[in-house]
Amino acid sequence: MSLLNENFLKLQSNYLFSDIAKRVENFRRNNPDARLIRLGIGDVTQPLPAACLEAMHKAVDEQASTATFRGYGPEQGYDFLRKAIIEGDFIPRGVSLDMDEVFVSDGAKSDCGNIGDILSPACRVGVTDPVYPVYVDSNVMGGRNISLMPAGFADGFVPRIPQEKLDVIYLCYPNNPTGTTLTKEQLSAWVDYARKNGSIIIFDAAYEAYIREDGIPHSIYEIEGAKEVAIEIRSFSKTAGFTGTRCGYTVVPKALVLTADDGSKVQLNALWNRRQCTKFNGTSYITQRAAEAVYTPEGRQQVKDVIDYYMRNASYIRTKLQEYGFTVFGGVNAPYIWVKTPEGLGSWEFFDLLLNKINVVTTPGAGFGKEGEGFIRITAFGTYENCVEAMERFATLKQE
Amino acid sequence: MSLLNENFLKLQSNYLFSDIAKRVENFRRNNPDARLIRLGIGDVTQPLPAACLEAMHKAVDEQASTATFRGYGPEQGYDFLRKAIIEGDFIPRGVSLDMDEVFVSDGAKSDCGNIGDILSPACRVGVTDPVYPVYVDSNVMGGRNISLMPAGFADGFVPRIPQEKLDVIYLCYPNNPTGTTLTKEQLSAWVDYARKNGSIIIFDAAYEAYIREDGIPHSIYEIEGAKEVAIEIRSFSKTAGFTGTRCGYTVVPKALVLTADDGSKVQLNALWNRRQCTKFNGTSYITQRAAEAVYTPEGRQQVKDVIDYYMRNASYIRTKLQEYGFTVFGGVNAPYIWVKTPEGLGSWEFFDLLLNKINVVTTPGAGFGKEGEGFIRITAFGTYENCVEAMERFATLKQE
Repeated sequence: MSLLNENFLKLQSNYLFSDIAKRVENFRRNNPDARLIRLGIGDVTQPLPAACLEAMHKAVDEQASTATFRGYGPEQGYDFLRKAIIEGDFIPRGVSLDMDEVFVSDGAKSDCGNIGDILSPACRVGVTDPVYPVYVDSNVMGGRNISLMPAGFADGFVPRIPQEKLDVIYLCYPNNPTGTTLTKEQLSAWVDYARKNGSIIIFDAAYEAYIREDGIPHSIYEIEGAKEVAIEIRSFSKTAGFTGTRCGYTVVPKALVLTADDGSKVQLNALWNRRQCTKFNGTSYITQRAAEAVYTPEGRQQVKDVIDYYMRNASYIRTKLQEYGFTVFGGVNAPYIWVKTPEGLGSWEFFDLLLNKINVVTTPGAGFGKEGEGFIRITAFGTYENCVEAMERFATLKQE
Repeated sequence: MSLLNENFLKLQSNYLFSDIAKRVENFRRNNPDARLIRLGIGDVTQPLPAACLEAMHKAVDEQASTATFRGYGPEQGYDFLRKAIIEGDFIPRGVSLDMDEVFVSDGAKSDCGNIGDILSPACRVGVTDPVYPVYVDSNVMGGRNISLMPAGFADGFVPRIPQEKLDVIYLCYPNNPTGTTLTKEQLSAWVDYARKNGSIIIFDAAYEAYIREDGIPHSIYEIEGAKEVAIEIRSFSKTAGFTGTRCGYTVVPKALVLTADDGSKVQLNALWNRRQCTKFNGTSYITQRAAEAVYTPEGRQQVKDVIDYYMRNASYIRTKLQEYGFTVFGGVNAPYIWVKTPEGLGSWEFFDLLLNKINVVTTPGAGFGKEGEGFIRITAFGTYENCVEAMERFATLKQE
């Protein structure tokens, strides 16, 4: 018997971003003077909000004296942050949560990956195609079978409700990589499906702060009955620039109750609490104070300003590409613009063309799944000046 | 079929620290004027080293401008910290490591809990009794069978080499909760056992900075051949007071190679790397800069001063309790003093007596396993003044 988790050997090599890095590196070597514009990776570029910086300096100072020093905090996060989250992100949308339904973590990726710890290896997992690869890989590691739910061009990159019964469904809206969203009606249909089939929805709302239009739920709990079927994962990464600071949270409502094999009723909330208390020791106190500052009046304004900045980029890119005759998705309620490649070009071919001809780095859609073939993802997280220049370069490309 | 990870239902309720909290709360309600001295929980009380505070302020300032802003870092940790770790913790002990053998994390508890992700659910796991509960609970969650390796009073709280073949063995030295250590010869015997049986040792060295005596390995890799069988987990929590700041690291040597069911050879290093890249997004940049500062000349001196402070406490407590006729373990190379209860008193009885008679909070040894019954754990992490007063109170107890 092998001592390994053999499921790891079933993982597909995921070389998307390292492949991109290699091609870019190769290009740079051959073109040392070219000025690359990177619109590929989904990382933010703007500084942290001033309110967060101030809160962190203050928290660091607290660690300087015995009287104010903070050691181990609650594994679930400090009450000051859980309270701010509920009052800031949920109450205004008509969603009430108890403090012990909110679990602060070091980021949404950890929670997306670790949530499988409380689920049976026998669960059938549904993910959209294209998809954020963490949902797939973490479930392969956990020994679960994956069903791809096509969400391709023909469907406007919105998945149809499955005919089959799936146990766990990952939904990410606003979507990475396509930038598409679900309306309240569309999301309601998923909640209905889950309620009918006894399924669990894992709703990744990492990009909710980018929603601009009405009628698009920011939280799945805006849908009636969702608390009985859905876990929601949130992040400060894209909201407030915490990609390097590390904070997110997960909501596991106490109304989400499953039946165990022995017939007993089990709250997933209790299982996740036990998981976190056993395998996690809380998020950095300093980081939690920074996250709390996101919800102050100053913090809110500063966060809004940064998101406005990125969304001006998104809107600019989207408008220009449409002017140039491209078919585009996203960029309205999401920082991602999902662009159809010109006739006859695959994702990687268009990627290479953009890299070599106009020195713009993007992400080939095929890296997110079969249904992403024929598309590239452009992110709005760069500087405005770079976005403008990148679009000027796209214009020259068009004229050739 | 249940959608739950049913293994969670096999977990024993672990109410040790909440039981303690309840008894303490109850006592406080009935004795509002009593001045409690808390020597129970293993949390530090002294401020962070000045070098770390300075590094964090600087790192926070870097997050204030686009030019120096840091977003996503490497999942494995920044090279600046991995290099500092290798040069600070391993080279001086004659251990060479490659940078990609060191994985920085948000803490040793996360790594202890998550390491099971790369191991087969069929592995037989050996843990000492008494034991840090995370090793047991995280493996029960993973569906693994646990073998207790008695390390009780009769053996001086040092486990004997098992007769049976175990696949994965957790060793924590200096030990929590007993404060005992293994000599180089004793640890060599474990490495030999693992090499002979094809076992993996998970060596938790969270307390290595407290080792004062020669002949006690700080790293398992000081033992020849250990790289082929051992993973080592380290923490900045007890070294530099990072219990609330969150940083640790795990070493997975590339020489640690297992055979898969299909006969292929697999480096655990590659599996752990894939796990971390999938389910983790790196440790806070600010925290990593703080950890790097631990290895500067100023940082080293400041860390040494804090550890000297705690070890003066440990030595004082140990000496006084011996004077009073108690049988004690630990407190020489560890911040824990493990105290035999007076004849005829169980762990919880002695705990209650200390709480009610002299208002000192300790931890009942029985909470760490059957072999911990008849002992209490005292930590040296309080202030010196409180340790002195606690020992004065023990003296009064003795005279009764």
